[in-house]
Amino acid sequence: MEFSPLVEQLIESLRCLPGVGRKSAQRAAFHLLERDRDGANELANALQKAMAEVGHCQQCRNYTEQDLCAICQSPKRSQATVLAVVESPADLMALEQSGQFNGLYFVLYGHLSPLDGIGPEQLGLSLLEQQLAKGQIEEVVLATNPTVEGDATAHYIAEICSRHSVKATRIAHGVPVGGELEYVDGTTLARSFAGRTSMS
Amino acid sequence: MEFSPLVEQLIESLRCLPGVGRKSAQRAAFHLLERDRDGANELANALQKAMAEVGHCQQCRNYTEQDLCAICQSPKRSQATVLAVVESPADLMALEQSGQFNGLYFVLYGHLSPLDGIGPEQLGLSLLEQQLAKGQIEEVVLATNPTVEGDATAHYIAEICSRHSVKATRIAHGVPVGGELEYVDGTTLARSFAGRTSMS
Ligand SMILES: [Zn+2]
Ligand SMILES: [Zn+2]
Repeated sequence: MEFSPLVEQLIESLRCLPGVGRKSAQRAAFHLLERDRDGANELANALQKAMAEVGHCQQCRNYTEQDLCAICQSPKRSQATVLAVVESPADLMALEQSGQFNGLYFVLYGHLSPLDGIGPEQLGLSLLEQQLAKGQIEEVVLATNPTVEGDATAHYIAEICSRHSVKATRIAHGVPVGGELEYVDGTTLARSFAGRTSMS
Repeated sequence: MEFSPLVEQLIESLRCLPGVGRKSAQRAAFHLLERDRDGANELANALQKAMAEVGHCQQCRNYTEQDLCAICQSPKRSQATVLAVVESPADLMALEQSGQFNGLYFVLYGHLSPLDGIGPEQLGLSLLEQQLAKGQIEEVVLATNPTVEGDATAHYIAEICSRHSVKATRIAHGVPVGGELEYVDGTTLARSFAGRTSMS
């Protein structure tokens, strides 16, 4: 026996969420049905709107529902000469919250990983090159995660920078090796940002 | 700085799920935006349909999008003389999966908990009494969880049964005390069902 068709469908659909198996999906479905139907309806609307309208900024690839994200649109920052390259929007947010950076960003959505079929194209590196070709950016801060893949990606991008005569720097140690940027406290991030070293 | 409005709204909406804080909501939002927009849209549809259409069976309170649930509608079971009272639809499912029971159910959606304002009315006990008053049910198996509250609820319902001259039984030990029915394996559940003892 199974639950009623719509309940089954809800349970199965909830499994699209990361780390949610059958049991947690069932718990979530019952929680919503029993205690938070308004919240569930709001979630449904938020999902539909976000999936339909949220795309990537045409300049930095950050999530936005407009052509350019709020940072690229900001008059204070659009003329910045420093650009930070991060692996994810969550990393971008972590740097913003450290309060140490007022420049532009570029979001890779991952790192080079040939075995998973993630190469320069998947990371949008031709868009980054277009940015560098404009001549406004003088320094690229490589703020990828301090992992083997993050380091390799940073080196790859540093070479692109040197072809465009743009200085490439790497955020300093301070971020624990093997850790994830997103989970580092603001002070550590700020120190690692301040202590960045030249890569080219 | 925050993420774009639709992304923020999605992250906040995901927090209606049990056990999902800001960080996990953010991870889930990025996962869906980046890797599973189809899944997210299906989830949105499933949520809307389920919240709009899933109600409680008019006889046993099990989830259903019809007036009566599949069990109450089943010709094989609608004439049953044994009725099992469970705390949740998940417990009902666990009993179904143990394969030991072919009768009717009644779902309480909780247990008596005066401090939380959960009394006989919140558990639908007047609907249960209507069922008993019809005279078809000869035995009520109290399959509430073997916790203090589950036991108290079982005793309360056993008294209702005795007023209607219906035999009340309690599922046997075998289910670990303090545990939750939903997580017990089928064999243990089957044994505890078979070893049920009279309460009235
Ligand atoms: Zn942007
Ligand atoms: Zn029913």
